[in-house]
Amino acid sequence: MQIAILLHDRFTALDAVGPYEMLSRVPRARVDFVAEAAGPVRADTGFLTLMAGKALADVPRPDVVVVPGGPGTAAETGNVALLDWLRTADATSTWTTSVCTGSLLLAAAGLLDGRRATSHWLTLDLLARFGALPAGERVVQDGKYVTAAGVSSGIDMGLTLVGRIAGDERARTVQLLTEYDPRPPYDAGSPDKAPAHLVEELRANARFILAGERSR
Amino acid sequence: MQIAILLHDRFTALDAVGPYEMLSRVPRARVDFVAEAAGPVRADTGFLTLMAGKALADVPRPDVVVVPGGPGTAAETGNVALLDWLRTADATSTWTTSVCTGSLLLAAAGLLDGRRATSHWLTLDLLARFGALPAGERVVQDGKYVTAAGVSSGIDMGLTLVGRIAGDERARTVQLLTEYDPRPPYDAGSPDKAPAHLVEELRANARFILAGERSR
Repeated sequence: MQIAILLHDRFTALDAVGPYEMLSRVPRARVDFVAEAAGPVRADTGFLTLMAGKALADVPRPDVVVVPGGPGTAAETGNVALLDWLRTADATSTWTTSVCTGSLLLAAAGLLDGRRATSHWLTLDLLARFGALPAGERVVQDGKYVTAAGVSSGIDMGLTLVGRIAGDERARTVQLLTEYDPRPPYDAGSPDKAPAHLVEELRANARFILAGERSR
Repeated sequence: MQIAILLHDRFTALDAVGPYEMLSRVPRARVDFVAEAAGPVRADTGFLTLMAGKALADVPRPDVVVVPGGPGTAAETGNVALLDWLRTADATSTWTTSVCTGSLLLAAAGLLDGRRATSHWLTLDLLARFGALPAGERVVQDGKYVTAAGVSSGIDMGLTLVGRIAGDERARTVQLLTEYDPRPPYDAGSPDKAPAHLVEELRANARFILAGERSR
């Protein structure tokens, strides 16, 4: 089973590495990080670079596609080469998935037309512009399409997929191996739970956050 | 503020990227991934390579040190260059931290003598061999030393540190931005919660798991 994780301009690292850490533990899985060109791809903060081992053209038929988000995704919704690859890969994939604003890329490729999908809470409404049906849940499955909410939710999505692919027993083993028994020290991880003034502040600055400006 | 995240032979990617994703959002923080030599460092699965932007010698006085774990850590407890760097960096750090088996490296460097610390649940007892006091909690703080349990716990540790460094308000903002409102699809993330036969199976195979053999 080949799992392709797409690295694109200014991706958010945890969006990619969360699902990777879970899915790489599926027995006999091979994970390939892919990008328009093989080689280094810099994450959104500018502090971290991951290597894409393969170019898109070298991975035409992955079994699982994972598309992370990041402040670069808005611009990438116009990247024809990337959208073409998504459509090609999706034609034969078993699972086509995204984390955070990665769902905007799937939607821009026309893969989420009329399907329920999620995204980072700040961009959930944008999904409708591309024909998807926004669903404000942490992990949303509609057929073979599995989308996750913001950044850290890719871990929940990845573990969910391990269960679908390799069974509940394996998924529980992976959860135990990665000691995924989260205890956030605060309870502000969603707009429903965070203090209202913080939610408003981020909404007011969404334009800058989504453009990846560091002044946030 | 300079945050140094150590990349070593066969580190576990989420151990490093979890804290990075939180700590990189501390205002005016700079994160440097460091390794014995600058350049590519391969993670434990063999599927993912991160770039170390700097060599250890180039980052002698970071404010925050983060040591991820991985199946290579047992061997690295004998790596003199690495342990020397940890001692040097620790001499002036504000926070010295680890995730998963990274605490074995801090302990081997003599930095956790008589201190409460945690590690991956499979290696918790090993801490005592290096003079630390094993504490089976998800995030353990003893003075400026903050250790986290297995793999995914580095996210909780990172967010805890954001709060200590930049205040609760900023930490809540980071939690909201990264939508860290975890919903694991299973409840098997610790040896207390997982089915007993899975815990036993991993304990029985601990030697192989810690050596990073893929047959797990």
